[in-house]
Amino acid sequence: MSKPAMLVVGAGDATGGAIARRFAREGYVACVSRRKKESLADLVARIEAEGGEARAFGSDARDEEQAVALVDTIEQEVGPLEVLVFNIGANVNFPIRDTTARVYRKVWEMAAFAGFLAGREAARVMVPRGRGTIIFTGATASLRGGRGFSAFAGAKFALRALAQSMARELGPEGIHVAHSIIDGAIDTAFIRDNFPQRYALKEQDGILNPEHIADAYWTLHQQPRDTWTHELDLRPWMETF
Amino acid sequence: MSKPAMLVVGAGDATGGAIARRFAREGYVACVSRRKKESLADLVARIEAEGGEARAFGSDARDEEQAVALVDTIEQEVGPLEVLVFNIGANVNFPIRDTTARVYRKVWEMAAFAGFLAGREAARVMVPRGRGTIIFTGATASLRGGRGFSAFAGAKFALRALAQSMARELGPEGIHVAHSIIDGAIDTAFIRDNFPQRYALKEQDGILNPEHIADAYWTLHQQPRDTWTHELDLRPWMETF
Amino acid sequence: MSKPAMLVVGAGDATGGAIARRFAREGYVACVSRRKKESLADLVARIEAEGGEARAFGSDARDEEQAVALVDTIEQEVGPLEVLVFNIGANVNFPIRDTTARVYRKVWEMAAFAGFLAGREAARVMVPRGRGTIIFTGATASLRGGRGFSAFAGAKFALRALAQSMARELGPEGIHVAHSIIDGAIDTAFIRDNFPQRYALKEQDGILNPEHIADAYWTLHQQPRDTWTHELDLRPWMETF
Amino acid sequence: MSKPAMLVVGAGDATGGAIARRFAREGYVACVSRRKKESLADLVARIEAEGGEARAFGSDARDEEQAVALVDTIEQEVGPLEVLVFNIGANVNFPIRDTTARVYRKVWEMAAFAGFLAGREAARVMVPRGRGTIIFTGATASLRGGRGFSAFAGAKFALRALAQSMARELGPEGIHVAHSIIDGAIDTAFIRDNFPQRYALKEQDGILNPEHIADAYWTLHQQPRDTWTHELDLRPWMETF
Repeated sequence: MSKPAMLVVGAGDATGGAIARRFAREGYVACVSRRKKESLADLVARIEAEGGEARAFGSDARDEEQAVALVDTIEQEVGPLEVLVFNIGANVNFPIRDTTARVYRKVWEMAAFAGFLAGREAARVMVPRGRGTIIFTGATASLRGGRGFSAFAGAKFALRALAQSMARELGPEGIHVAHSIIDGAIDTAFIRDNFPQRYALKEQDGILNPEHIADAYWTLHQQPRDTWTHELDLRPWMETF
Repeated sequence: MSKPAMLVVGAGDATGGAIARRFAREGYVACVSRRKKESLADLVARIEAEGGEARAFGSDARDEEQAVALVDTIEQEVGPLEVLVFNIGANVNFPIRDTTARVYRKVWEMAAFAGFLAGREAARVMVPRGRGTIIFTGATASLRGGRGFSAFAGAKFALRALAQSMARELGPEGIHVAHSIIDGAIDTAFIRDNFPQRYALKEQDGILNPEHIADAYWTLHQQPRDTWTHELDLRPWMETF
Repeated sequence: MSKPAMLVVGAGDATGGAIARRFAREGYVACVSRRKKESLADLVARIEAEGGEARAFGSDARDEEQAVALVDTIEQEVGPLEVLVFNIGANVNFPIRDTTARVYRKVWEMAAFAGFLAGREAARVMVPRGRGTIIFTGATASLRGGRGFSAFAGAKFALRALAQSMARELGPEGIHVAHSIIDGAIDTAFIRDNFPQRYALKEQDGILNPEHIADAYWTLHQQPRDTWTHELDLRPWMETF
Repeated sequence: MSKPAMLVVGAGDATGGAIARRFAREGYVACVSRRKKESLADLVARIEAEGGEARAFGSDARDEEQAVALVDTIEQEVGPLEVLVFNIGANVNFPIRDTTARVYRKVWEMAAFAGFLAGREAARVMVPRGRGTIIFTGATASLRGGRGFSAFAGAKFALRALAQSMARELGPEGIHVAHSIIDGAIDTAFIRDNFPQRYALKEQDGILNPEHIADAYWTLHQQPRDTWTHELDLRPWMETF
């Protein structure tokens, strides 16, 4: 009996890694993908050390052919894709007049277009089987276009539209499409290095633990189909909102 | 060592009962309250038969003195109140010109004012301890004022405002305040008797199983404080939204 | 030829007064109502001095019989009621544990229940004629349950639900139901006396001029029925949102 | 004394044309732009026949250099740009698995990326003058990701994020940024030819008259800065929402 496959697109950060490890612990082959395959070696090694199974894929999530090939390869070489987690962020902040067309486009390609490609390809193999879970990772900027966030909120709003549209079409096909709103800083190297004051809140549980985000995603996947959540906000107790 | 207490206000229906039973299975004394105590006898018996502990309280949730006394009694006779679930609904639909002042007021008293009283009293005992979970049960009408729903949506919107306001004030005090959006029919006698076509969807998991709602509420209570959900929608896979 | 009537419920403040004066200038008999009729004398005198026609009514907006009688009297003594503006606010802020049941109920009665009564009674006379405009005045707290605003936001959320529900039912009957979101301080004696720093922004147009709110309401009433606005936010240019 | 300039990007349809004509009647030089300049000849002729002044520009709104040049040319040859209306739509509906990457990208480029370019360039010349109005045309799909609308809602959500982000940054600079929600069919050749049943509602004012949309946009531009509207929904009286 082969294990089912799950795929994390954007597995490079702490969150994507924790999600992959969580599903691997539950018996899934954690397929992890990012542009540079070599940077996934540590994650794969860790999953294997924890007794799980993992596969790394180098794939540019913004490239349609590569997105198609990624899902095809998983289906052929690993097993039926049961879960997709799309987890690419691209958090930038610029005054509108300093936002270049290159940045605006790139942020959208990474955080929205790549989500469309991954989601569509997952739907392609899930719909005929009548089951599967697709989770898109959102942010505060999914709900609010804050000052300086024209590019990032634009992409995150678009990703939320995608999640809603897919949920309305694919729910009745048996596919659970969910969208999370991560409202707060996550315990990552990026926050540690760039926002030390924020990071110091870790001692008081004031930033999100990636392992707990992973638990929430696992819970979403486990929900029985009469009680599905579409949008899940996750926020530290002390976060202002 | 005494067990902690949890309280379901509005425990008369299938959902409130399932939530009480779920927390009782996890080691809480399930305090269940509704206006007429005698109608809670079956629920208490069932919880006890399942090996749990329960206490029934006759209390008019719309009466301030009774709301105060209910929490005081639990604290004194049962144990520290760790969880409050406010679960009173009052789903009515009338054209605006046929909505009586009596109905409009009563629906608000049951579904919003009683929630305020219960929530405030729970906060009173939880804040000094710096922990606790308060969950308000919402509905589709919490987000949308549909045709004919001026009274019900009015009360449900107000309850949602309460949940938001309390979450913003009490989150930083260590109290997890959450609001669920139950978007669909629940497997209850009311739906079975009044909406038989809807009820027939049960065979396909097209209506919500109260046990699964209870699981979701338990999960909310278990969330670590760095990863709290404030608003949780729950919806059958085939429900249009 | 008799003039049409318009009614401002909650005409005691600067906003209600400016709206009444605006419609009076356009040829409506401005019926203004508040609990104490005598405090409306200045407003009536000002409208008459500006060449308009006005009628003051002492009426407790929270009392069903008085709400019914108010509309009946206008229809019989003044003319067909074409416009209702519901403008009662009740902005209070208390920590949840300090919010008394009396305050919570009173705020709802003033800002939501009274709106229901006025709206229903206006609908009663407008629907048979197939035309009319009903505008409910909302606030920032209509959209967000802020810290300390359980009572005020509860009432304002409920009023918004009412506006939505009535719009969905009465739009197809030819009645234009709208809800404004006043997001900022208004140039009133209350702001001047209690928030002097805020009030000082008046020099820079940083607080809302009641005359301009009145213009916006007049514009809503003038919209052709193929292009109705349901929800209108109004906010000073420098207001954070 | 030279006239001020206003620019409609996406002036090819009935709505963009009506807006241009409305502002021309108020004394603005209506600069109208679309990809093929020649298709604007009729509009320019009509504006001139109505006594107004107009200039047609052939410009690909998705091209950064052309977007920059368009605003530069207007500033140099016509006058200070006081108003920008971004009005490009791209309403398509496909099941998710049938949505090609080409379509998904193109819809975003037309309805979101082009809006970013036009908005940014308008901001560039408006901010130093401390005044101006920027209006983005939205749709039902700006608020809801409906079934089959992953591409269109994705772009429209992104445009709404842009409008919010720009409003929050540029409001305090004196620039009025607004976003409309056109919720219904507009009286256009497209609706007439493709949705004849819908179009038949025109007799009952059941579809939006472009002239009335133009009036609403003019009203937005005229709002005093203490009473700005950010989001304006426009909907026929009989439209379900």
